[in-house]
Amino acid sequence: MIAGIETGGTKFFCAVAESADPTTFIDRVRIPTTAPQETLGAVREFLEKHFSEVAPEAIGVASFGPIDTNPASPTYGYITATPKPGWSHTDLRALVPLLGFDSPIAFISDVSGSLLGERTSGAAVGMNDIAYATVGTGIGVGVLVGGSLVTGHGTPELGHILVRRHPKDTFEGICPFHGDCLEGLACGPAIKARWGHSAQGEEVEIIGYYVAQLLLTIILAVAPARIVIGGGVMKTPGLMDSAKRQLSELIAGYLGGDHPATRSADTYITAPQLGDFSGLTGSLVLANSLLR
Amino acid sequence: MIAGIETGGTKFFCAVAESADPTTFIDRVRIPTTAPQETLGAVREFLEKHFSEVAPEAIGVASFGPIDTNPASPTYGYITATPKPGWSHTDLRALVPLLGFDSPIAFISDVSGSLLGERTSGAAVGMNDIAYATVGTGIGVGVLVGGSLVTGHGTPELGHILVRRHPKDTFEGICPFHGDCLEGLACGPAIKARWGHSAQGEEVEIIGYYVAQLLLTIILAVAPARIVIGGGVMKTPGLMDSAKRQLSELIAGYLGGDHPATRSADTYITAPQLGDFSGLTGSLVLANSLLR
Repeated sequence: MIAGIETGGTKFFCAVAESADPTTFIDRVRIPTTAPQETLGAVREFLEKHFSEVAPEAIGVASFGPIDTNPASPTYGYITATPKPGWSHTDLRALVPLLGFDSPIAFISDVSGSLLGERTSGAAVGMNDIAYATVGTGIGVGVLVGGSLVTGHGTPELGHILVRRHPKDTFEGICPFHGDCLEGLACGPAIKARWGHSAQGEEVEIIGYYVAQLLLTIILAVAPARIVIGGGVMKTPGLMDSAKRQLSELIAGYLGGDHPATRSADTYITAPQLGDFSGLTGSLVLANSLLR
Repeated sequence: MIAGIETGGTKFFCAVAESADPTTFIDRVRIPTTAPQETLGAVREFLEKHFSEVAPEAIGVASFGPIDTNPASPTYGYITATPKPGWSHTDLRALVPLLGFDSPIAFISDVSGSLLGERTSGAAVGMNDIAYATVGTGIGVGVLVGGSLVTGHGTPELGHILVRRHPKDTFEGICPFHGDCLEGLACGPAIKARWGHSAQGEEVEIIGYYVAQLLLTIILAVAPARIVIGGGVMKTPGLMDSAKRQLSELIAGYLGGDHPATRSADTYITAPQLGDFSGLTGSLVLANSLLR
């Protein structure tokens, strides 16, 4: 049996599964994200319940971040300088010896986890060149190229691209680093700060313009065979359609009329299929990959 | 012996090399790009001189484009809809049977060729996560992730990203598709059309702002361990420094103080080392890879 953990800013999910099928949970639990000691204590309790006699064969962790995913780093498995209060410099790796295990453990970012989950049993099964984007509390993108996650020096941080401003948008943006980068203008809290509610009517066009620029940049940078895009903001009625239409206008025929972004955008750019469990599934897939 | 061909809008290079060391030319020739029949005739002549008795073990082609690099496509090896007059729908693959050979042949984009060349014996030797950018007559980027060239659906087309306008720049741009995309504002012909000469003085800051946005997008999208950036425009005095400084301002500390883009930009972002022969070397590396 293997274990998977998805850590998020508001909740953790933990699961155990059989390594023969990491996409099917034997048991899972949802734990609210409070203070590290409390939250990690609940994780420990859940794991101890299932692994009282035998250690997990492997543990995979898909984490909010920034998470140090470089196995050669002394802070591998640490959440580093996160804006989430109390969680900076939290050592997630320490969980294993605390449990009395010496199981192998691996760490990836939350979006990379969701990407692996959707690739294994969701919206992009078996595909080797895909991007997974989330537009929610933050904006993040995981990228798989030729079957490898992009991790050359760190991971993709496409939430912070500089976007061209919509002419009707004068909001100054909320990114503490960049003000009006993509995340500063289009994440959930930016929408809330600007209008006090989810985007509606003409506001959807404005956010759609920014999402379209994210999609455009992904296509131009990594030429994926499919883009899966989720997150709370993407549930806004009309937003996906608006983004696809404006993407097509931005491409302006450049990539050829038969590029799937124009010809078959419905399957090329698609919502996740695993609901809340893309990342958790991915953490189990990651754990399973340690066994091979 | 193997053969390599780099096709460009103004010149072709052809070379023969020993497969034991594809980075050292036995012979090479420079052919001006005129009409397809004439230019390809000269290529044929060069190859016939060296391969009158025995066929090349393999041929690699790094080509201006768009070039169809999908082996499953019926137009594999064709230059497709290029703005270069007379060259649209030119079948480069037909060269092999014309020569009476049945040698294996492979095609990649010019920037991917330069990337492979610089990776084999230039500015990024042995590195698996790199980007090669050229800012010249056009703007193009090749990307290697985990040792694989990005070719999920087509190749990267980062020359056409939407950039934020420099506040002092009112030029409308020259891209026939997008007007003021990156290439429309910052390629050599755009600079010439705007000012009648290479960028100088304050103009360097304007072009530097656009190059900085290209570097930023590359870093945020594919997190390379090194970026090699060349092309005629990058020879403008002061441009590389201006771009690196403005890149650092755009990152604004987000990636952490120890990110090489800020801490060691001199080695992280670097000029090519193979001069005119990055692409030609890459075409031979490609040919050599067919033998394995």
